[in-house]
Amino acid sequence: MAKITPRAQDYSKWYLDIINHAKLADYAPVKGCMVIRPNGYAIWEKMQAALDKMFKETGHVNAYFPMFIPEHFMQKEAEHVEGFAPEVAVVTHGGGKKLDEPLVIRPTSETIIWSMYKNWIQSYRDLPMLINQWANVVRWEMRTRLFLRTTEFLWQEGHTAHATPEEAEEETMKMLNVYATFAEEHMAVPVIKGRKSESEKFAGAVTTYCIEAMMQDTKALQAGTSHNLGQNFSKAFEVTFQDRDGQLKHPHSTSWGVSTRLIGALIMAHSDDKGLILPPRLATVQVVIVPIGRSEEEWNSVCEVADGIRKELAALGVGVKLDDDQKQKPGWKFAEYELLGIPLRMEIGPRDVESKQVMVARRDTGEKASIAMAELSEQIPALLASIQQGIYDKAKAFRDAHIFNASTYDELKAIINADQGWVRAGWNGSAEVEAKIKEETKATIRCIPFEQPENLGTCVYSGEPAKYEVLFAKAY
Amino acid sequence: MAKITPRAQDYSKWYLDIINHAKLADYAPVKGCMVIRPNGYAIWEKMQAALDKMFKETGHVNAYFPMFIPEHFMQKEAEHVEGFAPEVAVVTHGGGKKLDEPLVIRPTSETIIWSMYKNWIQSYRDLPMLINQWANVVRWEMRTRLFLRTTEFLWQEGHTAHATPEEAEEETMKMLNVYATFAEEHMAVPVIKGRKSESEKFAGAVTTYCIEAMMQDTKALQAGTSHNLGQNFSKAFEVTFQDRDGQLKHPHSTSWGVSTRLIGALIMAHSDDKGLILPPRLATVQVVIVPIGRSEEEWNSVCEVADGIRKELAALGVGVKLDDDQKQKPGWKFAEYELLGIPLRMEIGPRDVESKQVMVARRDTGEKASIAMAELSEQIPALLASIQQGIYDKAKAFRDAHIFNASTYDELKAIINADQGWVRAGWNGSAEVEAKIKEETKATIRCIPFEQPENLGTCVYSGEPAKYEVLFAKAY
Repeated sequence: MAKITPRAQDYSKWYLDIINHAKLADYAPVKGCMVIRPNGYAIWEKMQAALDKMFKETGHVNAYFPMFIPEHFMQKEAEHVEGFAPEVAVVTHGGGKKLDEPLVIRPTSETIIWSMYKNWIQSYRDLPMLINQWANVVRWEMRTRLFLRTTEFLWQEGHTAHATPEEAEEETMKMLNVYATFAEEHMAVPVIKGRKSESEKFAGAVTTYCIEAMMQDTKALQAGTSHNLGQNFSKAFEVTFQDRDGQLKHPHSTSWGVSTRLIGALIMAHSDDKGLILPPRLATVQVVIVPIGRSEEEWNSVCEVADGIRKELAALGVGVKLDDDQKQKPGWKFAEYELLGIPLRMEIGPRDVESKQVMVARRDTGEKASIAMAELSEQIPALLASIQQGIYDKAKAFRDAHIFNASTYDELKAIINADQGWVRAGWNGSAEVEAKIKEETKATIRCIPFEQPENLGTCVYSGEPAKYEVLFAKAY
Repeated sequence: MAKITPRAQDYSKWYLDIINHAKLADYAPVKGCMVIRPNGYAIWEKMQAALDKMFKETGHVNAYFPMFIPEHFMQKEAEHVEGFAPEVAVVTHGGGKKLDEPLVIRPTSETIIWSMYKNWIQSYRDLPMLINQWANVVRWEMRTRLFLRTTEFLWQEGHTAHATPEEAEEETMKMLNVYATFAEEHMAVPVIKGRKSESEKFAGAVTTYCIEAMMQDTKALQAGTSHNLGQNFSKAFEVTFQDRDGQLKHPHSTSWGVSTRLIGALIMAHSDDKGLILPPRLATVQVVIVPIGRSEEEWNSVCEVADGIRKELAALGVGVKLDDDQKQKPGWKFAEYELLGIPLRMEIGPRDVESKQVMVARRDTGEKASIAMAELSEQIPALLASIQQGIYDKAKAFRDAHIFNASTYDELKAIINADQGWVRAGWNGSAEVEAKIKEETKATIRCIPFEQPENLGTCVYSGEPAKYEVLFAKAY
């Protein structure tokens, strides 16, 4: 049986053990790259389906832009090139020949997309342009960690163009809210919405908004970002449209993305020392049925009933698997499905068949209960909903218990240095103060939360009047 | 209004005009690359959904492997490197530094996947391994054409490992049949299943099977391939498993793929001089409702009824759009939706509201009919099914009318040179003969069809006894 290092012993090892034993991902032959194995990819497919639906419901359409970007495109937006140039992979040869101009593999697609928008946007009638892309991107990383930071990763990137700054800001916030809803309602991960400081914002953005989540080691993880890009890219790529008033104007734009790092967030937020814990809405198999029987006769009659239940649940839209493999014993299967994070296990033995009931065990709490077969179509969906909510509530209680107010820098340092959690504190808005705190504690400003107190108090570092209340934390 | 060059005037121009005016794709700034625009990508999403469902129903799971392949991997399988080395794009720099070993961007993923299978396959219990990947690939092409041949394209590639050669062969055929079913039942494109000659098979395969489709200019298009790779890759990557008998053996493998070139095939197979013709099963919008009314009062009452019909059809699962934009006139809309290939147009005016009926027009035949509103939920799905079948039947009749038997080389040349269609003829199996015919006529052996006649006759070129009956054609 898979041996998982307990969290208390070595959190990093625990994380990698889960990924390894649950076969979620593997290291690739190329340094920093990752193979997403079928069990991990199934989670991504569920995430994609839910997000894609939300994108379409908010009026977006999908497209695909090339991954090759002419090197000089990257240089058109000054901050963008400064941020991304050091991390790009470069194609210099194609078809056996040296290329006239090297091609950058997209680290993000603003430049290639705006080079196309130049052709597609002429009039206010062409706006808003609301396009999303599901794609792979490459950022050359020195220190990598499966799912959380890899050289190549999968993501979606929305790129929109609008006639007015107000519409662009509305779009930026709308998509941040889509991400927050997805994180909380599908991933069961509570998030705090806020704005990034100048030093932490996207290279090329006017404003970056984010959702921040707490992992079980109390570190923060940025789970999604939505950028208001102003007219930076429309100006850099000379995109104009004729507005209703006949004037030529540059469109206002946004971009927003989440990536396969969300799988890492999901693992770190919920799992335990037995393995993965999947929220039902992201589990392909939500219920696994394990039949139990000694004699061939017992086995056959149990499996027949179990298969009936499988069909009944499948017809309700429940993701259900009947594990009728006779080579493995029930105890082995129990441990295996706990490792894989299947939300609900159902056991059926000969006596259950007789008494027309089944035993179910929740993955999140370990609680067991018996349910009458006649009530399964009502009880199972209710139990899955209860698990989904229970996982969220637990993560939220954990997070809320690990955010501390600090009014002095000593307090902040004590909390951060002891890895107790996040610190909520006043900040005077100075980039110097932010840099000092980062240098001295390794904690960064995760965000300036949208919810601000009425009385801001003083800056935790300088003692000056605070401009914002912010969240400090070490982060992935 | 968009002006499309008629097929009869310039077939290539007609194809590009449709792509351009229907906004399916656009040229990218990098030579040979393509942007798939939202209207084109929506077709790909429909294709993906249908294929992915079929892959899962046949027991496959999805995963994601890195696009970077260490250069020396490509050299492990002799025929593979010979076939693909001339077309690869090479990354030589990453993160600002020259790499120790250049990285090839996957032209196909056999090598990277088999390097991972080496770790994942130990025992017969790990087999079969049935993995598919949806990904972008790069093949450096000199002559490109939107959708049909581009430097980067999107595809799926299945890679499976089996304990026995029989299972591998069964899998290869199973997936070829999945492709044929998809082409015929979803794309409404009839295909001929067969085997490739040695010179046309995949670099690294023992046998390549294919489905071949005829376009409206009578050229052939290879719409999907399924390869039996034997033990070529398991040996090259030293992958072994312990079989039931305790012996160490190399697994047998397959790979199979279809790509975004299918969108090109779809356009070329069905469309006409007015624009795209989409089979209903691949159309996101299957029915577009165009309300007609002069006064504001008329308009409002018509739209109210139209919206009720929209909801009724949507509830049935029909892809339906109500175009209640008042800025464009009905005539403009009719032409626009014909250009976009929407299978069914529904017109509703004030008199229709009164008489409780609507007018519908089929995109494929142009036929119009009036339908009582009370019968829409029955009639519309039936009409869509009839359009799907009608498009297929038309394509099949066209194809069958353009395949000719030739018993002499002069006959073959006359048909091919006049671009009359495909030639069915005997072949002695000689690679020399195949090469000669290709050189002299530009026609290649598209496949050795599974269906072979009882009496083979003689080789069309050499006059020797034929080994097979084959199909000769010029191809995309």
